[in-house]
Amino acid sequence: MSRTITILGSTGSIGTSTLDVVASHPDQYRVAAIAAGNNLDVLLKQIEQFRPELVSVATEEGARAVQDRFGSSVEVMVGQEGLVAVATHEAADLVLTAVVGAVGLLPTLEALKKGKHIALANKETLVAAGHLVTALAKEKGCDLLPVDSEHSAIFQCLNGERLTDVERIIVTASGGPFRDKTRDEMAQVTVKDALNHPNWAMGAKITIDSATLMNKGLEVIEAHWLFDMPYDKIDVIVHPESIVHSLVEFADGSMMAQMGAPDMRVPIQYALTHPTRLPGSYKRLNLLEANSLHFRAPDLDRFPCLRYAYDAGRIGGSMPAVLNAANEVANGMFREERISFLDIERVNAAVMERHDVLTNPGLDDILSADAWARIAAREVAQKL
Amino acid sequence: MSRTITILGSTGSIGTSTLDVVASHPDQYRVAAIAAGNNLDVLLKQIEQFRPELVSVATEEGARAVQDRFGSSVEVMVGQEGLVAVATHEAADLVLTAVVGAVGLLPTLEALKKGKHIALANKETLVAAGHLVTALAKEKGCDLLPVDSEHSAIFQCLNGERLTDVERIIVTASGGPFRDKTRDEMAQVTVKDALNHPNWAMGAKITIDSATLMNKGLEVIEAHWLFDMPYDKIDVIVHPESIVHSLVEFADGSMMAQMGAPDMRVPIQYALTHPTRLPGSYKRLNLLEANSLHFRAPDLDRFPCLRYAYDAGRIGGSMPAVLNAANEVANGMFREERISFLDIERVNAAVMERHDVLTNPGLDDILSADAWARIAAREVAQKL
Repeated sequence: MSRTITILGSTGSIGTSTLDVVASHPDQYRVAAIAAGNNLDVLLKQIEQFRPELVSVATEEGARAVQDRFGSSVEVMVGQEGLVAVATHEAADLVLTAVVGAVGLLPTLEALKKGKHIALANKETLVAAGHLVTALAKEKGCDLLPVDSEHSAIFQCLNGERLTDVERIIVTASGGPFRDKTRDEMAQVTVKDALNHPNWAMGAKITIDSATLMNKGLEVIEAHWLFDMPYDKIDVIVHPESIVHSLVEFADGSMMAQMGAPDMRVPIQYALTHPTRLPGSYKRLNLLEANSLHFRAPDLDRFPCLRYAYDAGRIGGSMPAVLNAANEVANGMFREERISFLDIERVNAAVMERHDVLTNPGLDDILSADAWARIAAREVAQKL
Repeated sequence: MSRTITILGSTGSIGTSTLDVVASHPDQYRVAAIAAGNNLDVLLKQIEQFRPELVSVATEEGARAVQDRFGSSVEVMVGQEGLVAVATHEAADLVLTAVVGAVGLLPTLEALKKGKHIALANKETLVAAGHLVTALAKEKGCDLLPVDSEHSAIFQCLNGERLTDVERIIVTASGGPFRDKTRDEMAQVTVKDALNHPNWAMGAKITIDSATLMNKGLEVIEAHWLFDMPYDKIDVIVHPESIVHSLVEFADGSMMAQMGAPDMRVPIQYALTHPTRLPGSYKRLNLLEANSLHFRAPDLDRFPCLRYAYDAGRIGGSMPAVLNAANEVANGMFREERISFLDIERVNAAVMERHDVLTNPGLDDILSADAWARIAAREVAQKL
């Protein structure tokens, strides 16, 4: 059995881990196309190693560099058009989408239109337009396979179970680097502090989102769409050790949990192999070394972004897309040291407050709301 | 949907919990026949409430008491013949066998011959004759559904998975009441000390087996047969909180765990509802109250019974039946205060040492080995 895949975001943390998985199972997977941003050095090495037929890069300059090196042996495309071409590449039956932010939405919808299964690491796609993406996947009979460790855990806990037997989903959160900080302390933190995640090595945007708990909030919205679960049945629990990746509680009181060492290659591989598994020589969890596991409730007063996400999810319509876009801007401005850490939540709250919600938005409505929210976020940030 | 069941051992801890489950789902389950030992008061109330067609009791005296009270509205039988009649009752498609000890073996085999599914709380049946029971179940297309919380957990972790993807099974052990005692301290413990289990309310025999860790050893052998798993792939881990009921580690490094409050009604109900679930208003696990979970390796030097069970399982043939029978005798003699706590392991070791193993034993061989081991155990005990 061999499966042909394409990867959106091949040079990021998830993309490189995905290619690690592919490299360790060369008989099982072939990579037909990859799309990357500006990390050209890594991209050129990936092309050398995996020999995709099609490569998409962010800029014309990058495209020339690829062409200079590989000539006509690889087709090169640029920008959004290139992302869509990679996502809809004829040879592949599965697209792993690991780009960061709402930019993943259009290629995902185009891939679904072509009947591709989606392995989804780009949570912003479901946050912004979950109703469109899930409806299209259902219509086309495509799988939406979770890649996030939390959603992969829930997906595994649901193996062989009926969704109607689920009482609630429990998404675990490490709590991020500021888990035990007071609000006064959080007011002073630097970008470097926020990028120092205790358990996971991830990209910059998601690491900052982990520090505000917005990442967990986006995951709650993602879980709502992936598992067709009302928000009242999705809880978040702080679990500092990041060993239990999430849980499901069933109507009979039984709880299933998926556990493991914090290595993204495990959920990535599972998305590619589901419903079976393949051997993986990744770091193993040793429960004897883990020794002690802790659980506590999240503090929504110290981490209001998690509450905003629940609010946006429950309000629905265009609100999750707006929160997501505002957060992308605020997160970026914090990383550029233009606003403080606590300003991120202020921007998110203020943009949600200003937004006139559209119910049942179409794709154009979502994209407009997203664009509006980015402008609004910058305006709000400038007045802080 | 309504299912008709029979229960062997209705007045014990598992039997009464099973009837609790039945009582809370009166539309789902009917009890056609029950077999009990000497607890007549409880039995009479159960007959009153559940109105089985057939009742089996241990003694003629008990039978007369039932007949005096219920007359011709219920058929009454006695002893082994009664157990087999309950196990093979025409109306039922599932037998829950919760008798204690090797006495459960014959009725289970007879039930399988009649094509009944088995919900197995009587682990000694699989320990003594796992090869016969599993072969017959396979031949007849009958389910062997685990009822022990550990095996139910493993069973749930295997939902939707392939056995070939399993790397190992991890059976959790509370460690029992003497988890932290030295050998010198264990030499002094009383029956009352040993019956004081930290987490589970169970019958006397299994509670003593939990104190020696022989119960965990029998569970390892049971897991070997239930899940067709070599002993090298079955580990035991001490987990004092008894919240993670067991785990399965897969080839990709992913671990699935089943968790819950320590309430036997959850695994009992699951055995009756598998592969679906029914609501249960049993005590729920609150992870926030659980707070901290611990894991450590079992100490085979302080608890050699666990090692004897692995040894007996690996030796195979008649040896597990011999260890099981010797242990039943030793366990009983300790409860009668005729031998000390550490004498239990001495009896088990000495009887195993004396036994000439029969490979691939038939039922008669198993029963002979069992009978021989009981005599040998008493002889050994008298010389201690």
